[in-house]
Amino acid sequence: MDAIDVIRAKRDGLELTPAQIDWAIDAYTRGAIAEEQMSALAMAILLNGMNRAEVARWTDAMIRSGERMGWSALDRPTADKHSTGGVGDKITLPLAPLVAACGAAVPQLSGRGLGHTGGTLDKLESIPGWRAALSNAEMLDVLASTGAVICAAGSGLAPADRKLYALRDVTGTVESIPLIASSIMSKKIAEGTGALVLDVKVGSGAFMKTVGNARELAETMVGIGRDNGLNTVALLTAMDRPLGNAVGNALEVTESVEVLAGGGPADIVELTVALAREMLDAAGIAGKDPAEALRDGSAMDVWRRMISAQGGDPDAELPVAAETHTVTAPAGGVLTSLDAFGVGVAAWRLGAGRARKEDPVSAGAGIMCHAKPGDRVTAGQPLLTLHADDAARFERALEALDGAIGVEEDGRPDLLPLVIDRIA
Amino acid sequence: MDAIDVIRAKRDGLELTPAQIDWAIDAYTRGAIAEEQMSALAMAILLNGMNRAEVARWTDAMIRSGERMGWSALDRPTADKHSTGGVGDKITLPLAPLVAACGAAVPQLSGRGLGHTGGTLDKLESIPGWRAALSNAEMLDVLASTGAVICAAGSGLAPADRKLYALRDVTGTVESIPLIASSIMSKKIAEGTGALVLDVKVGSGAFMKTVGNARELAETMVGIGRDNGLNTVALLTAMDRPLGNAVGNALEVTESVEVLAGGGPADIVELTVALAREMLDAAGIAGKDPAEALRDGSAMDVWRRMISAQGGDPDAELPVAAETHTVTAPAGGVLTSLDAFGVGVAAWRLGAGRARKEDPVSAGAGIMCHAKPGDRVTAGQPLLTLHADDAARFERALEALDGAIGVEEDGRPDLLPLVIDRIA
Repeated sequence: MDAIDVIRAKRDGLELTPAQIDWAIDAYTRGAIAEEQMSALAMAILLNGMNRAEVARWTDAMIRSGERMGWSALDRPTADKHSTGGVGDKITLPLAPLVAACGAAVPQLSGRGLGHTGGTLDKLESIPGWRAALSNAEMLDVLASTGAVICAAGSGLAPADRKLYALRDVTGTVESIPLIASSIMSKKIAEGTGALVLDVKVGSGAFMKTVGNARELAETMVGIGRDNGLNTVALLTAMDRPLGNAVGNALEVTESVEVLAGGGPADIVELTVALAREMLDAAGIAGKDPAEALRDGSAMDVWRRMISAQGGDPDAELPVAAETHTVTAPAGGVLTSLDAFGVGVAAWRLGAGRARKEDPVSAGAGIMCHAKPGDRVTAGQPLLTLHADDAARFERALEALDGAIGVEEDGRPDLLPLVIDRIA
Repeated sequence: MDAIDVIRAKRDGLELTPAQIDWAIDAYTRGAIAEEQMSALAMAILLNGMNRAEVARWTDAMIRSGERMGWSALDRPTADKHSTGGVGDKITLPLAPLVAACGAAVPQLSGRGLGHTGGTLDKLESIPGWRAALSNAEMLDVLASTGAVICAAGSGLAPADRKLYALRDVTGTVESIPLIASSIMSKKIAEGTGALVLDVKVGSGAFMKTVGNARELAETMVGIGRDNGLNTVALLTAMDRPLGNAVGNALEVTESVEVLAGGGPADIVELTVALAREMLDAAGIAGKDPAEALRDGSAMDVWRRMISAQGGDPDAELPVAAETHTVTAPAGGVLTSLDAFGVGVAAWRLGAGRARKEDPVSAGAGIMCHAKPGDRVTAGQPLLTLHADDAARFERALEALDGAIGVEEDGRPDLLPLVIDRIA
């Protein structure tokens, strides 16, 4: 087999054979296919697509490039959730302990933020002492003792995906549904979860800007899950405005803890409970009400034990940014828009996000939203509080918010429903 | 400017701006765009194309990546020819001295063979002592003193193209008309010729298999020439059967010398004279008959001086392969086909060609054709003589000829006309 033959086949619109896919992924992992060859193949895939059989095989080959974890040592079923990323999307933080409190084990391998979207590990690292890097044995220990673990994926998991993801990032080949779907699913399947719920975000703050694209990605991922014997369900959910009120690392941890204490913003509670129900259902656990587990403190108990088990102090004061700046309503009326992308970029510029994966993030930086689209506001009322370690950051953050806020006297926001659709 | 933005633009079907093209070629030459980024861009160009303005700018940027030669020190106009490559295509050998004998100077930068197509430099290197590598000053000396020079392009000429060509070769991105056209034309324009005639081959032994593709390539190259103020004409010519009777390095030199002596196969003579007329016309030289310059020995005089000036002995015995094998007609009738690709691959396997550019070639290996399509043959009559340094090579060469020879009792060959079209 030869790299050029495989590239030419996809370039010329042919279906890649299982043997070609297996060879290409293995050869790339070993270094026998050069980076410049894989990038040409990735571009050909982006432009000419892959069908369901090709995507299934591609995913399978990436799983086989590394280790496959398993949780048969646990006495209960496992379930995991993956979000395609958004602004203010801290759902994993209350969700993992909530589902664990309802009887499933949640082995959640998470990532860091890039660009305007936040990352679960960055958020949790604002808790003093908390460690993202666990060995497989430590991961099993935390999972067995608390029911939930949120940590970084080890390097042994789908190494082909790790290498390909870094390559796609610098070669303009990220935006391919077959490559996105196989990247996500290869890690989730290798992680060994027994059930998977996908939260596919739609809107300006999401990777998928339209419902059509999001649906295609969701259907592709659900198909891969089914083809691999993994019970997989996807929800399409709104990311045209930020989720909840807090955007930023420590700010989002604080909001998550409010939800676990039975409070918190209504949209976060609603989506957390909806996803928990899907996870429990997919894991075959019946008769548990996640809303009750938020009210009765059992989810909070798991959270505290989970954070402690990974070295964190659940009672510690979280970092606070030194400087704040208030954005007020320009006029009275209805807040018709609070654009997720604008808010996400502003939070990133305040220090909450990073441009390159090796950059640090600020724990305290971010944005608190004091009104949601649809709310009536009066002229001069505070809409947002920007938090930054350095006041010099406000100017460029405010530029990102230019056009992101709409107030109209008798306006009505044109918003996506929080849960747009369910794909199973 | 950013590599990913340029890749995305072409990936998404946009026209690249002049600034994007200039930056991309310069950054790639400097190493600021990585190989894997350029290969993704090349694949996007292959699949989404470039329009005339983009191709012109791309070519211009590749020319500006290196030096630009000039021949204003000469007392006569310059003209050059480029062939897209074929089987038995030794036309440059008689053509360059012929055109010089008629009053133009011919600064011919040539290449080596790869795969089933031969290379002019490989052929000339079968002449004992002849050197392909000349400095710019030596090239001018030979050109001024003899009127023609055939040598290798120096590394200072269009270095962006040199780098990109090597990359395309390993990433399945060779077969893009905009990239092929800009590669050829950047070198020819940087070479500084005053007029250019393109011989675009069509058929099984050529890079372009159909007249439609060849026409598109020819039109693209003529357009680039015009856009750069270079008087450019293209002929589309037949490569469905070998050109002439000889295929192989020393064998083709011998045939070329026969043409220069006033003899040689009719198709070689016809095409050489047709291309010479185009070159003289494009260079503005009127009233010279190239056919006469073959008959009166003046072209041969230039040949002898040109070969001597580059260290070769025009009277030397050429290398002869140690082994021969005769292929005879399987039946009596009309030779309806002698497939150029089959013969080219067979000659390559006999040792006349190479698979990788660092491989050596055999000077003596190759094939002599004793009949041309359309000739009547009798059963058992010799059709081909295979020449090789090692008899072990015959078996795989014969395999390549399987299906390449057709004899039918009352058949008629279905051949392309030698000169199919002219594009100016």
